[in-house]
Amino acid sequence: MTTTTAELDRIVADAAAAAHVWRTSDAPTRAGWLRAIADALDANRGELVEIADRETRLGATRLTGEVGRTTGQLRLFASVVEEGSYLELTVDDADPAATPPRPELRRLLVGVGPVAVFSASNFPFAFSVCGGDTASALAAGNPVIVKAHSGHPELSRRTAEVAIAALTDAGAPAGSLALVEGREAGNALVQHPVVQAAGFTGSLSGGRALFDLASGRPDPIPFYGELGSVNPVVITPAAVVARGDALADGLVGSFTLGVGQFCTKPGVVFVPDGAGFEDAVATRVAAASGGPLLTDRITDAFPGGIETLLGDPSVQVAAHGAETHDGARPVVLTTDAEAVAARPEVLLEEVFGPVTLLVRYGSDADLHAALAAVPGSLTATLHAEEGDAVDETLELLQARAGRVLFAGWPTGVAVTWSQQHGGPWPATTSLHTSVGASAIRRFLRPVTFQDAPAHLLPAPLRDESLASLPHRRNGTLRVP
Amino acid sequence: MTTTTAELDRIVADAAAAAHVWRTSDAPTRAGWLRAIADALDANRGELVEIADRETRLGATRLTGEVGRTTGQLRLFASVVEEGSYLELTVDDADPAATPPRPELRRLLVGVGPVAVFSASNFPFAFSVCGGDTASALAAGNPVIVKAHSGHPELSRRTAEVAIAALTDAGAPAGSLALVEGREAGNALVQHPVVQAAGFTGSLSGGRALFDLASGRPDPIPFYGELGSVNPVVITPAAVVARGDALADGLVGSFTLGVGQFCTKPGVVFVPDGAGFEDAVATRVAAASGGPLLTDRITDAFPGGIETLLGDPSVQVAAHGAETHDGARPVVLTTDAEAVAARPEVLLEEVFGPVTLLVRYGSDADLHAALAAVPGSLTATLHAEEGDAVDETLELLQARAGRVLFAGWPTGVAVTWSQQHGGPWPATTSLHTSVGASAIRRFLRPVTFQDAPAHLLPAPLRDESLASLPHRRNGTLRVP
Repeated sequence: MTTTTAELDRIVADAAAAAHVWRTSDAPTRAGWLRAIADALDANRGELVEIADRETRLGATRLTGEVGRTTGQLRLFASVVEEGSYLELTVDDADPAATPPRPELRRLLVGVGPVAVFSASNFPFAFSVCGGDTASALAAGNPVIVKAHSGHPELSRRTAEVAIAALTDAGAPAGSLALVEGREAGNALVQHPVVQAAGFTGSLSGGRALFDLASGRPDPIPFYGELGSVNPVVITPAAVVARGDALADGLVGSFTLGVGQFCTKPGVVFVPDGAGFEDAVATRVAAASGGPLLTDRITDAFPGGIETLLGDPSVQVAAHGAETHDGARPVVLTTDAEAVAARPEVLLEEVFGPVTLLVRYGSDADLHAALAAVPGSLTATLHAEEGDAVDETLELLQARAGRVLFAGWPTGVAVTWSQQHGGPWPATTSLHTSVGASAIRRFLRPVTFQDAPAHLLPAPLRDESLASLPHRRNGTLRVP
Repeated sequence: MTTTTAELDRIVADAAAAAHVWRTSDAPTRAGWLRAIADALDANRGELVEIADRETRLGATRLTGEVGRTTGQLRLFASVVEEGSYLELTVDDADPAATPPRPELRRLLVGVGPVAVFSASNFPFAFSVCGGDTASALAAGNPVIVKAHSGHPELSRRTAEVAIAALTDAGAPAGSLALVEGREAGNALVQHPVVQAAGFTGSLSGGRALFDLASGRPDPIPFYGELGSVNPVVITPAAVVARGDALADGLVGSFTLGVGQFCTKPGVVFVPDGAGFEDAVATRVAAASGGPLLTDRITDAFPGGIETLLGDPSVQVAAHGAETHDGARPVVLTTDAEAVAARPEVLLEEVFGPVTLLVRYGSDADLHAALAAVPGSLTATLHAEEGDAVDETLELLQARAGRVLFAGWPTGVAVTWSQQHGGPWPATTSLHTSVGASAIRRFLRPVTFQDAPAHLLPAPLRDESLASLPHRRNGTLRVP
């Protein structure tokens, strides 16, 4: 089912008509709309999970948990709206005695206008129709038009129906949320004059194509894409000695979690040469089972990605997981740091699915030369012991990632105020996060009012509102 | 003098080498470096103004004031660094009892790395070598490479010498600040792999070309351009009745200020038909004098821009200013709202220099139809009286501008915490400001540390720093 040009025009016009209501909605109202969606998803969870499992093969347990994460995200953003810091309310009082005399200036962030959201294949709830991009764009005060992912069309339609009904019942205007389908409609959406920003989670090639369309518009718009990430992990010799078995358990658990289909999957792991860690991993992988991948396209692409890596003379298979008749077997590959430093464009390409590449390093110099070739990632992880000299390693990891982990695994992504899910290109196309409270910043723009009569100011900027909201006045930050 | 490829490579390598020191510099050190530049500019003001006046013809009074604004900007950003809110310090403590268990997350913003800054012609100090883009990029903890404007090369070199000497004396690393010259060097700079962001103030065509280069990189970088703005003004019939003479004085003063070479010049003014306001403006313009424009290229372009407007059958000259032998005469043109709504691409093109276009409107409906065709602008101004129904007008103005003024003129831009100097395309290429404290946000990226040992955290994220810095902990904003 493909959205026609005429349908798209109507959908976008409805969103444009709803934009004023969303932008000027007060905090309790807007928070209520977000919670109404969350409540409706929870109420329809059984049906939605059943459709999702049929379309994505991710299993009811994982999918049920993902609905909880999704409704949690919506409720987090409701609380972000109510807390009010996201408005960045800032007032400088007039100073007629200054040279030149200073006017009164009052600044806040407001919604940018209708936002396009491109759903992901691998999170049919949390990064799809009512996922984090949608939640943060609505929280910012914008209508949202979602491009459904072709991997779960029925779920997309049903989720949209449930959410739109909940919004309507809660009094939100028509045009608050809509769904479009088909690649052509997606391309048209990101180029539509009414659309003011876009969020995307998906492949590097697909994201780059849409980024180029957004940037190439007569009036370019911000395109917030989360594209691809190899999520480097560094393990020091001392860490292998101290807890090698636990690290091998953790790594295999992390890279095979969800059949290796998380954007934070550890895809390249720097391990000390000769410490026996590869064997520990290989043993566990041989005993691990895989499973079905999300779509036929992903299933077909997986062996090709591995073949490409194996085309490099340095790469060998350390172990395969158990045979499976309907999905992907976990694979662990090995190479060395010199090869990675020499041919990063071959060896550091993200392969979606249950595969990781162990990179042997002999010296810190070898390790650092290889790390310098690692592309921008969502995460970077260091497993070290207290006596290890890790300053340079940490510097290299931090330069390449938005989240730096110690003694953990990157596949869990807590949805909190402090989360950063984004990193240097190609991890994301922007300096922002797509997970956590500050994701709202992507869909806001600043407006300053100079010498405005109080009754013409947006409500949050009036003195009576400032009394109960975090704000800065004459340079001083104030929390009520 | 053009920077060669070899020179550029060396300059960029020096900046890359300095990036770590800048990023990890503590607040007193970094603020000291900014103040050292400010002090050095103040100490060399006489010499710098003399060079600037020779190259730009802006006059010693204006230029002396502009040095003061420039050093004020540097000192504002020093105080922004010390205040610390810009770090957006955010901590979520671990919650082992949560499902799944939540790790500790600590988030801050850090400098993106070396920044390219493209100087403007019309502010040889405040938007040039040590202008607002440079000040905010350094404050964010980044080395800066400035592309000199060809309109004031000697001033650019001397300013860079003074600032670099001051930085060196203050202990900043080599490579903290550098200057390149020539269009080719500028194009190479924005595409250089080491450069992580760019700031620009200039023309729509030049800015668009650089934006396209930045967006077209294999690894796109943010390009913060301030490109062009017609700065609409709306005057209601009641305002003309109440204070028509003062409005005419103010408008003529504003659009001829600095010979019409401010990016916030009111370029299109919606005036009530038949209220006599055009005559009041024409009388004043006939008595106004012009002056030399910044460069020969701008001087040559000015008559062409006016000719283009006069090519529209609706446009007429209301008045010319006094003849001048070496510069531009002020001009006021007239048209009507129907013509603007029908042909905005002709009538709403920015013309740099002392010209403004009065647009007669008969009804609010005519006014609103024309306003809907106004492109994104830095500012929008409303002159109304208390009884006027201005909601829809205000909605249209706010949608098109980053700063909305009441009963004032847009050509003054206070450098404060609340300022917003940026707006929808083509005013700027981003959702950020290039003037005021929050300009620093453009050159920062978030990094989150998960379960990091305290001694491996960036200093501001350690508990002992949090005690004296604004931060959010477990969702609650705290100001020490």
